[in-house]
Amino acid sequence: MGLDTASVKPHERLSEALSQEMAAVNELIRARMASEHAPRIPEVTAHLVEAGGKRLRPMLTLAAARICGYEGDHHIRLAATVEFIHTATLLHDDVVDESAKRRGRPTANLLWDNKSSVLVGDYLFARSFQLMVETGSLRVLDILANASATIAEGEVLQLSVAQNLATNEEIYLKVIRGKTAALFSAATEAGGVIAGAPETQIKALFDYGDALGIAFQIVDDLLDYGGSSAATGKSIGDDFRERKLTLPVIKAVAAANDEERAFWTRVIEKGDQRDGDLEQALDLLHSHGALEATRIEALAWAARAKTALNAVPASDLREMLTDLADYVVARIS
Amino acid sequence: MGLDTASVKPHERLSEALSQEMAAVNELIRARMASEHAPRIPEVTAHLVEAGGKRLRPMLTLAAARICGYEGDHHIRLAATVEFIHTATLLHDDVVDESAKRRGRPTANLLWDNKSSVLVGDYLFARSFQLMVETGSLRVLDILANASATIAEGEVLQLSVAQNLATNEEIYLKVIRGKTAALFSAATEAGGVIAGAPETQIKALFDYGDALGIAFQIVDDLLDYGGSSAATGKSIGDDFRERKLTLPVIKAVAAANDEERAFWTRVIEKGDQRDGDLEQALDLLHSHGALEATRIEALAWAARAKTALNAVPASDLREMLTDLADYVVARIS
Repeated sequence: MGLDTASVKPHERLSEALSQEMAAVNELIRARMASEHAPRIPEVTAHLVEAGGKRLRPMLTLAAARICGYEGDHHIRLAATVEFIHTATLLHDDVVDESAKRRGRPTANLLWDNKSSVLVGDYLFARSFQLMVETGSLRVLDILANASATIAEGEVLQLSVAQNLATNEEIYLKVIRGKTAALFSAATEAGGVIAGAPETQIKALFDYGDALGIAFQIVDDLLDYGGSSAATGKSIGDDFRERKLTLPVIKAVAAANDEERAFWTRVIEKGDQRDGDLEQALDLLHSHGALEATRIEALAWAARAKTALNAVPASDLREMLTDLADYVVARIS
Repeated sequence: MGLDTASVKPHERLSEALSQEMAAVNELIRARMASEHAPRIPEVTAHLVEAGGKRLRPMLTLAAARICGYEGDHHIRLAATVEFIHTATLLHDDVVDESAKRRGRPTANLLWDNKSSVLVGDYLFARSFQLMVETGSLRVLDILANASATIAEGEVLQLSVAQNLATNEEIYLKVIRGKTAALFSAATEAGGVIAGAPETQIKALFDYGDALGIAFQIVDDLLDYGGSSAATGKSIGDDFRERKLTLPVIKAVAAANDEERAFWTRVIEKGDQRDGDLEQALDLLHSHGALEATRIEALAWAARAKTALNAVPASDLREMLTDLADYVVARIS
């Protein structure tokens, strides 16, 4: 990798390489989030859809289809589909999160937002299935219906195991596959399917998305405890305060002695958190090597993502996806 | 119609005639609402799915398919699909309604319910699309994706026009088509499509479901003001207290003089409701003939539903659907 490309982030290079198609995706998103009958819908979605996120998921679909030699235009519809599903889950997450955050002071505005968030999320979800129907591919519908079920299942599982010290790494993996990796893997798999790629390539694209999503989420959870480096610029301890059982804590709990276990029970299960508890938690994470072990797992998943790509034809786009896997873990490397 | 059949309600006769297929639908619903990873999901849905509602919508799908001579088993999947979509919208409505009702005192339990309701509704929605994919019919997927979008659109439209005296009958019709009729018409239309019925019959089944759903909702809205009869046993004035613009009020507002308009502005738009206001509202509804006019519209939609059925082959099941249209408006006849 030369200096010129190394200085540009891989998702920016993807964005550049796919700029024409992404323009078509954005156009389609704007057209389909409109509602003849309910003008409130685009008002609610606009701030999410227009906010100019990285659009990583739709780019994965476009790139996967193109890597497999696709020359049609259904991948545009699928990319918009994936972004709609992502936006719908964000809207529904807002309901879940806002309720908790503003506990005790629900405003009319909050309630209104809740209503709008739930219903507009439903609308986008329905719109996404309409777009899939237009591709005429039942297999694509199957993939994204399955992914949608897995996403919801992962979020419900997360509710069920929240603040429960019995949560182990297997359960954690199920949760993050649902909340993050399922849409990544569906995005890449659907791109391969619409391109009519051989099954080995479709499987490879699924594996890439799955591993990339898992790496992405583990990094996110690690950075919430500062990662192995202090230079992340991310505020630390949000998950701790919300008593989330993420991978670093799961590893520290598994290695805890009786006294440490009592600490975790108090701060996570009982939610009795006092001054200095976050510092003590960080000490325990360090002393058991939990942060380093988590870091190693994230790197391993990124490596798996890259390895999976060996099964698809080499191209500039494939190289960008490879670099993307490195980039996702770069903040903790 | 003989005395023997007249004494048994039409939905009970449908339930009897379709008992074997409904048993298969219920079995499929139980199997598909299970979640390997998130046992909380069936806990949340069980009280809704097992509560033993009339199961009107899945019966409409089964009946429509059978009336058109269908002998396969995909109508079982479609019936379960329709019930899942219905249950998902109920779960999401709960979020919307409970928030408002318990305004000012959100409990941890309420918040938990909100989270579960949103996510489990999403899960059932995804599951419903998986079931549709299994039928292999893209047209069925198209119908139900469109219906899902219309449902969400109708609910958002209802939010936007709530408490707004400018709401007219055209807007009202859009709202109730979304919140009620869209799933009825999709249920019957999908039954015809899966049976491979001629287009005229499919259209007739759509029209039947559409008109039946509209009649159903108008009756519901009328009964909230006591209907034309006092013997309904339904508590009166809920919509008034929630400041909903339903058909009786829309008609009364359209006929209001300045003084009456000021009254409606105060109680509906401003929400300043005092002792005796419901009685005054009822007086205005009566004096302008708004209840009677609403009643006539409900009867007209029921008649349209019955007329539509003339285009499908005569059978016992068709007669039950005809009687069902009468039954829906029987409480106000």
